[in-house]
Amino acid sequence: MKKTLLAMAVLAASGAAFAQSSVTLFGVVDATLAIGNGSVSNKTQLTNSGLNSSRLGFRGTEDLGGGMSGSFWLEAGLNNDNGQGAAVGNNNNQAIASDVAAVRAGTQGLTFNRRSTVSLAGGFGEIRLGRDYTPHFWNQTMYDPFGTNGVGTTQTLNSSLGGPTTVRASNSIGYFLPGNLGGFGGQLQYALGENASTGTKDGNVVSLRVTYGAGPISAALGYGKTKYVAGDATTTNVGASYNLGVATVMGLYDQDKNGAVTGKGFLIGATAPVGAGEVRAAYSTYKTDAAGSPKTNKFALGYVHNLSKRTAAYATLARVTNTGASQALNGAATAAGGSSTGYDFGIRHSF
Amino acid sequence: MKKTLLAMAVLAASGAAFAQSSVTLFGVVDATLAIGNGSVSNKTQLTNSGLNSSRLGFRGTEDLGGGMSGSFWLEAGLNNDNGQGAAVGNNNNQAIASDVAAVRAGTQGLTFNRRSTVSLAGGFGEIRLGRDYTPHFWNQTMYDPFGTNGVGTTQTLNSSLGGPTTVRASNSIGYFLPGNLGGFGGQLQYALGENASTGTKDGNVVSLRVTYGAGPISAALGYGKTKYVAGDATTTNVGASYNLGVATVMGLYDQDKNGAVTGKGFLIGATAPVGAGEVRAAYSTYKTDAAGSPKTNKFALGYVHNLSKRTAAYATLARVTNTGASQALNGAATAAGGSSTGYDFGIRHSF
Amino acid sequence: MKKTLLAMAVLAASGAAFAQSSVTLFGVVDATLAIGNGSVSNKTQLTNSGLNSSRLGFRGTEDLGGGMSGSFWLEAGLNNDNGQGAAVGNNNNQAIASDVAAVRAGTQGLTFNRRSTVSLAGGFGEIRLGRDYTPHFWNQTMYDPFGTNGVGTTQTLNSSLGGPTTVRASNSIGYFLPGNLGGFGGQLQYALGENASTGTKDGNVVSLRVTYGAGPISAALGYGKTKYVAGDATTTNVGASYNLGVATVMGLYDQDKNGAVTGKGFLIGATAPVGAGEVRAAYSTYKTDAAGSPKTNKFALGYVHNLSKRTAAYATLARVTNTGASQALNGAATAAGGSSTGYDFGIRHSF
Repeated sequence: MKKTLLAMAVLAASGAAFAQSSVTLFGVVDATLAIGNGSVSNKTQLTNSGLNSSRLGFRGTEDLGGGMSGSFWLEAGLNNDNGQGAAVGNNNNQAIASDVAAVRAGTQGLTFNRRSTVSLAGGFGEIRLGRDYTPHFWNQTMYDPFGTNGVGTTQTLNSSLGGPTTVRASNSIGYFLPGNLGGFGGQLQYALGENASTGTKDGNVVSLRVTYGAGPISAALGYGKTKYVAGDATTTNVGASYNLGVATVMGLYDQDKNGAVTGKGFLIGATAPVGAGEVRAAYSTYKTDAAGSPKTNKFALGYVHNLSKRTAAYATLARVTNTGASQALNGAATAAGGSSTGYDFGIRHSF
Repeated sequence: MKKTLLAMAVLAASGAAFAQSSVTLFGVVDATLAIGNGSVSNKTQLTNSGLNSSRLGFRGTEDLGGGMSGSFWLEAGLNNDNGQGAAVGNNNNQAIASDVAAVRAGTQGLTFNRRSTVSLAGGFGEIRLGRDYTPHFWNQTMYDPFGTNGVGTTQTLNSSLGGPTTVRASNSIGYFLPGNLGGFGGQLQYALGENASTGTKDGNVVSLRVTYGAGPISAALGYGKTKYVAGDATTTNVGASYNLGVATVMGLYDQDKNGAVTGKGFLIGATAPVGAGEVRAAYSTYKTDAAGSPKTNKFALGYVHNLSKRTAAYATLARVTNTGASQALNGAATAAGGSSTGYDFGIRHSF
Repeated sequence: MKKTLLAMAVLAASGAAFAQSSVTLFGVVDATLAIGNGSVSNKTQLTNSGLNSSRLGFRGTEDLGGGMSGSFWLEAGLNNDNGQGAAVGNNNNQAIASDVAAVRAGTQGLTFNRRSTVSLAGGFGEIRLGRDYTPHFWNQTMYDPFGTNGVGTTQTLNSSLGGPTTVRASNSIGYFLPGNLGGFGGQLQYALGENASTGTKDGNVVSLRVTYGAGPISAALGYGKTKYVAGDATTTNVGASYNLGVATVMGLYDQDKNGAVTGKGFLIGATAPVGAGEVRAAYSTYKTDAAGSPKTNKFALGYVHNLSKRTAAYATLARVTNTGASQALNGAATAAGGSSTGYDFGIRHSF
């Protein structure tokens, strides 16, 4: 039987790490009944990822000895409401609309759009190559009580002027500091737009993030710049949270410059455990100096009921009010200066 | 070693359930040499799914205690003859041609087109969200000796006027009765076309199925209605089978209305175990009241030789005769009123 | 615990076979910093597969008794630099450009483009159905020190006139000789372009390969012919290698005819173990009788440093010189008759 165990399968349950494991299969299937009301039209959809982003992934780590390791991470986003995958931005210069022609036609296959990397790690930190999050994205999601998912997502992300690399970049070379720096951490990323030397540097990215964590305190600073033919995009943000025990309070400030237009906004929010569940609340706002000075304020309130660590039911209510802008929620449409209300009701199962 | 076992991998072999399992990887790879003869042209192809639909899937169930469970199911169709996946109908209003432009271009990636759901189940039954079969489909496949696969597929499906939701629907909310109702069962599905409130309800589906099973008897009634801009589609069908021991006999009646056109048809058939194999035979017919009153009759005869529970070789012969219609088999083309003969020879391996 | 073990998971670590295994999950994630210099423009990219082709696969074998087995193999190529998959040629008559519109748009999902087959094997050999390598491809990769990956890839492949089936074919029926023929082996493949009988045979393939291996000697002969509307393509090649212990030397001759144009070329090369690493070197050349008699010579030198059996870092340098042709490396562009230099630096992790 020893022989059997040596050759034994290596997929770990529920993302739990298996000491000698080669591959971990993991994922999230999160389905959401999403209702949006606006002054122009309402919409009701079965959509996905209202609590956590639906995904299917494969990852693994190999111990190379001497504190070194090699690893890979392949993670595909899922539109589990209709079974499709999601597109990527392969040269960091294209907006990845959730309703690209391929999705409307029903032909969008799975891609490892969420992350697709290979790494070497050791005492020096980690070198990571491939498609990955941009460092300057992390503050948006870490200091949003709704984790930038669902109808409650911070308006600093929904209105962001940051462009196609606001969340991820392809063709990236990343460096992560090791984990033993007295609470400090950091990462640096350079990503390539892959143009010819006689062309532009369209899609080239430089981004970094510095973090600090100690006991109940977490804080981080992010900065990213992406070169675009139409005008470079720059994002600077800072976030912090404090765990009071009864609740974790958090705040986020984000400023973007895209060509000649500047946008800025902030969020204040909190999460609080309540029995087996969690209450989440946030107020966020974003305004730009584009024509008409569009501004959107958002309030969101939600509750997650954990049926287990892996399975939860949730409900979120959000409302946006606009000045100049016409942001609406969950597929509704609203007139400029109007408001919109959205509701998410869903089930999330992770594995 | 206990520690090892606790963290042990959780993919179960051959779809066998593992008590504490988190994820089961499963699939079918079925390749078919498909020959079609018709009065206009013949065709020979290596295609797929002549016996069972080729697929790759991931599914899992978590025990939540108190009789409750959470689960997910992600199942992708495979065109294993050329390695491509299959498209979906994301808004339930588009025909999913097997030769969409993406497939012809060789770019169709994997989607979880066959099923992509998350569920909560308990004593009350099961709530299932996502892309799933329409309830009114099931009678077509359950009471067809060929299980709606390959050249033998019942003509009530091949000629069906049921439209894009004849087999599956996206954005669906399903409810299944629990399994302890004295042989009775049932399911109800509502699926969203996801139009704005000022638009049409194009692609909205209501479908249900009631089943009864006891000893050798199985019977079921299905009904589904899908709203389309071009005219709603309604399907009503009923099927039954009886296991005589030496053979199982079955019958199916199906009626569809699509806009102003009505189609109706039936199947009678049988399957019989013969040593390690199974003989399958069916006669099916379908006619509509469209111009020319097109009608197609089909006879199909097949044999499956089981090399194991998972691996089988099979051969199927089918012949259609048309009145007004020009249905042909396996890629052949035949003139209106002509006939067509098709042959499938294949290997199916499941895992 | 026996029960547990019987139902135990079956994914094997690192491609290691598990006696009773049903499914093996395997893959390669190889990321490459690829630099190309040419007389017209240079380019720097993060790309993939500089050492081995990036992939994610699922395969399994079932023992059917009596020396028979059933098996499947599903293997998807990965563009892990941006998370996309790769397209296929579904009818063996379309060039599969690495920059097809779907890839540029970021929508190319995973397909099992590398291999998608089901097999029955026994004392008679193996019957394999689906998408697979063409037999006449194998000599190109087996007798290239760089295994037809990365900037060092033999020019007999990069300049090949062999057309869309130079590497793989869809809709194929393959036969492999059994493994006990005194060092001799062979395979035969017929693949279908799937045209109507009144149409052309565009995309139909016949290909075969005969191999011999004994001790340090390996040699093989390949031949393939694909019918195209624009003119048939024929490839004939022969390769051999000899393991001297201190190094393995190898050579390859390849001749292609595509319509009225003939191309021919050869490679000589070697690989040599150096401590935990391997040095690789090759000279290859290819010329055609098309207008201007284009000819390209290539020299490539590389080093692979194995951090483990699964994880390696590598560097490759290559240089092409053209006469009449304008071949360039790693996305650079060079004028006709010019030269180009390319560099690969990468990390490969397999699982």
